[in-house]
Amino acid sequence: MNGSLSVVGLGPGSPQTLTPEAAAALQSADALYGYGPYLDRVPARANQTRHPSDNREEGARAAAALRHAAQGAHVALVSGGDPGVFAMAAAVCEQIESGDEIWRKLDVAIVPGITAMLAVAARVGAPLGHDFCAISLSDNLKPWELIERRLDAAAGADFVIALYNPISRARPWQLGKAFERLRRHLPASAPVIFGRAIGRPDEKVLVCSLDAVDPSAADMATLIIVGSSQTRVIERPGLAPLIYTPRSTEGSGA
Amino acid sequence: MNGSLSVVGLGPGSPQTLTPEAAAALQSADALYGYGPYLDRVPARANQTRHPSDNREEGARAAAALRHAAQGAHVALVSGGDPGVFAMAAAVCEQIESGDEIWRKLDVAIVPGITAMLAVAARVGAPLGHDFCAISLSDNLKPWELIERRLDAAAGADFVIALYNPISRARPWQLGKAFERLRRHLPASAPVIFGRAIGRPDEKVLVCSLDAVDPSAADMATLIIVGSSQTRVIERPGLAPLIYTPRSTEGSGA
Repeated sequence: MNGSLSVVGLGPGSPQTLTPEAAAALQSADALYGYGPYLDRVPARANQTRHPSDNREEGARAAAALRHAAQGAHVALVSGGDPGVFAMAAAVCEQIESGDEIWRKLDVAIVPGITAMLAVAARVGAPLGHDFCAISLSDNLKPWELIERRLDAAAGADFVIALYNPISRARPWQLGKAFERLRRHLPASAPVIFGRAIGRPDEKVLVCSLDAVDPSAADMATLIIVGSSQTRVIERPGLAPLIYTPRSTEGSGA
Repeated sequence: MNGSLSVVGLGPGSPQTLTPEAAAALQSADALYGYGPYLDRVPARANQTRHPSDNREEGARAAAALRHAAQGAHVALVSGGDPGVFAMAAAVCEQIESGDEIWRKLDVAIVPGITAMLAVAARVGAPLGHDFCAISLSDNLKPWELIERRLDAAAGADFVIALYNPISRARPWQLGKAFERLRRHLPASAPVIFGRAIGRPDEKVLVCSLDAVDPSAADMATLIIVGSSQTRVIERPGLAPLIYTPRSTEGSGA
């Protein structure tokens, strides 16, 4: 088997946050696979084929990339953010487990990237500075009841919570329900951060409190961070406030 | 205020995983602050001063960097991994909130990096492919009871769990206790991954099952990922197994 598959994290989208390791994997590939808008972020190179696919076709896309690699090509499959966080790396593993035996012999590398919650957190301060959870709000692949159970568990134990895949045309009500659920556990003043397209020309960051949050401010590319009871807002004259979760918990004496 | 402070994530340590944005922030700084071994990873440059400090002096280090920036210098404070995840960004915010009023007027930027759990996950497959939590096991800044409560909540709701700061000379028993706690909730076969120094010459990755785990295999630079009940191991002939958590949950019909 001479072929290989690299699953490459593009980070939040600016070339300034693409690691040299990821850039090298893209540069050396014979073929690039990925969701169209992500592929469009990769500079063109001669003698490299491009195979864009639609959103929500992760399994088929992963299988196509594996099939191509098994023919001896060096294939790069691009992923937004980090491929291991609600992205293509798990889809590739699923295909390897259930697909052609020969795919188990392939050289497969996962190349990490800056995942959305790190990029959004960095823009506002350090909201993930203490224990946190990452939850996908998509109930396409898991029952909504499990998502509610996890929101309860996370907020009940006062984790900061990062919400991926908050909303889509096919999933319009889930985010509102999730905020309702979180209000049972968290103070009305808990800071909520909406961030999208960090480092790109259309970057947007919005901060509000849990009681005033408007789910319609999110789209499918938005990453949301919900602070814990400990998360704090530092007002700054003439500058955006800093939002952070202290390293020590109140009453711990530290 | 002409000075500035950048809190820069070095990622797991190889220059191949340092983002161009982070490299530029280090390159353009007048002064570098950080834990000694992290500073040693930054290439030397003329006309740039270096201010190494010991581990566990985060507050004092952040204050020194802010004081220097307030004098008009461009200061970079380096952090391993991502500065927002159990690292320097929260320490800086704490100092800004409680310290000199003038620090609130400073231009402060957080430059994200590849945090350890993403680097370790990428090495073995996609263990963070579904909902997950990140918990620091250090009880220096929070009570051990809260850590146990969070371990119970996370494992009880079947999150994958990334453990930061698992062990140190001053905290020898906590990791063993944490595994005991997790065994109450998780199957004995749940995969556990120990990873350290990913991408560096002394990289180490170790995989075992929860019932066979040996806490003494970890040191203070180790990041541990504990799989959920859904996390799977794909055996591969002649290659290391792939470990991943599927995007869909069993019984969700997807």
